[in-house]
Amino acid sequence: MNPDLHAWANNLSQLHLEIWLRLARGVHDRHAPARHPTLATVTQDGKPQARTVVLRAVNTLAGTLDIHTDLRSSKVQQLQATPYAAVHVWDASAHLQLRLDVGVTVLTGIDVAAIWAAVPEGSKLSYGSTPAPGQSIAQALAYTNTPDAKHFAVLRLSVQTIDALHLGANHRRARFDRLDDWAGEWLAP
Amino acid sequence: MNPDLHAWANNLSQLHLEIWLRLARGVHDRHAPARHPTLATVTQDGKPQARTVVLRAVNTLAGTLDIHTDLRSSKVQQLQATPYAAVHVWDASAHLQLRLDVGVTVLTGIDVAAIWAAVPEGSKLSYGSTPAPGQSIAQALAYTNTPDAKHFAVLRLSVQTIDALHLGANHRRARFDRLDDWAGEWLAP
Repeated sequence: MNPDLHAWANNLSQLHLEIWLRLARGVHDRHAPARHPTLATVTQDGKPQARTVVLRAVNTLAGTLDIHTDLRSSKVQQLQATPYAAVHVWDASAHLQLRLDVGVTVLTGIDVAAIWAAVPEGSKLSYGSTPAPGQSIAQALAYTNTPDAKHFAVLRLSVQTIDALHLGANHRRARFDRLDDWAGEWLAP
Repeated sequence: MNPDLHAWANNLSQLHLEIWLRLARGVHDRHAPARHPTLATVTQDGKPQARTVVLRAVNTLAGTLDIHTDLRSSKVQQLQATPYAAVHVWDASAHLQLRLDVGVTVLTGIDVAAIWAAVPEGSKLSYGSTPAPGQSIAQALAYTNTPDAKHFAVLRLSVQTIDALHLGANHRRARFDRLDDWAGEWLAP
């Protein structure tokens, strides 16, 4: 690897900026790695679960990310019991793994009416399957989709810590903490 | 999408075979999506964590997967307290998301001596950093790597359930359970 190619990985504040830049790119570029993070949650009986989600918004000043989901999905039930999640992104072209610890607020109803109004009509079909997501059905296609605002939820993820691992000739790993104003520290990889 | 392209997604037993075929491919093909699953665990205080791992072995008859790790890594501590993990693979070319619930056994010492002997010399460097993985260091490269068999651990993942989501003109979702002899059932996506 060209040692200058990822020069941002040599400096904590540049690395921190690069992380948020790449997260923000996920909202607007459907081919960006941060477009489809993996979201891990904990079930009511204390076991982990993980699934792909779509990154819908990033607020770099507030340090928050938004995910849209069906209010009846199992991840919402899990987050209502344990409002913490882990967000994982592997950015192959940057040789960069991002691991975010987040606190999660489930927003619904009037709080998300403006966001719902801006969801494209075709995408609204994702929030109204019958039966509900994860229910057993007799045949593969024995379900229907009718958009329904009352099934629409926004998961607002408040980033608490970021663990970044850059793979190069020498690996670099850093940790950033909201409580430390994102100053950052290096970790052994 | 050509409706015949992923014909295996129309039939539960063919889908189940295809899943294990794609998992096994991850062991031998470094470009296969299953080469680098995301492994989610639960911390001692009940919060989720997720990170990329490398799939090292698949036993399709036993329904197990092997991951290699440093015994001192935080995921080992988490798995010793809560021996359950979730394995996530997104296979873009197959339009297929795999979500596995697994029970985890941490193997060390004499139980993994033969596996350690077969690890390439260069790869052994991953199991002997000083300080230990995740410890704070003053500079990005203030660590050394010396191979050490006593830091080598194998995580043996016993697959309990598989949730498979195929994205097509119509999405298909199925769940397979070891307790049901992997017969499978369709779920609403």
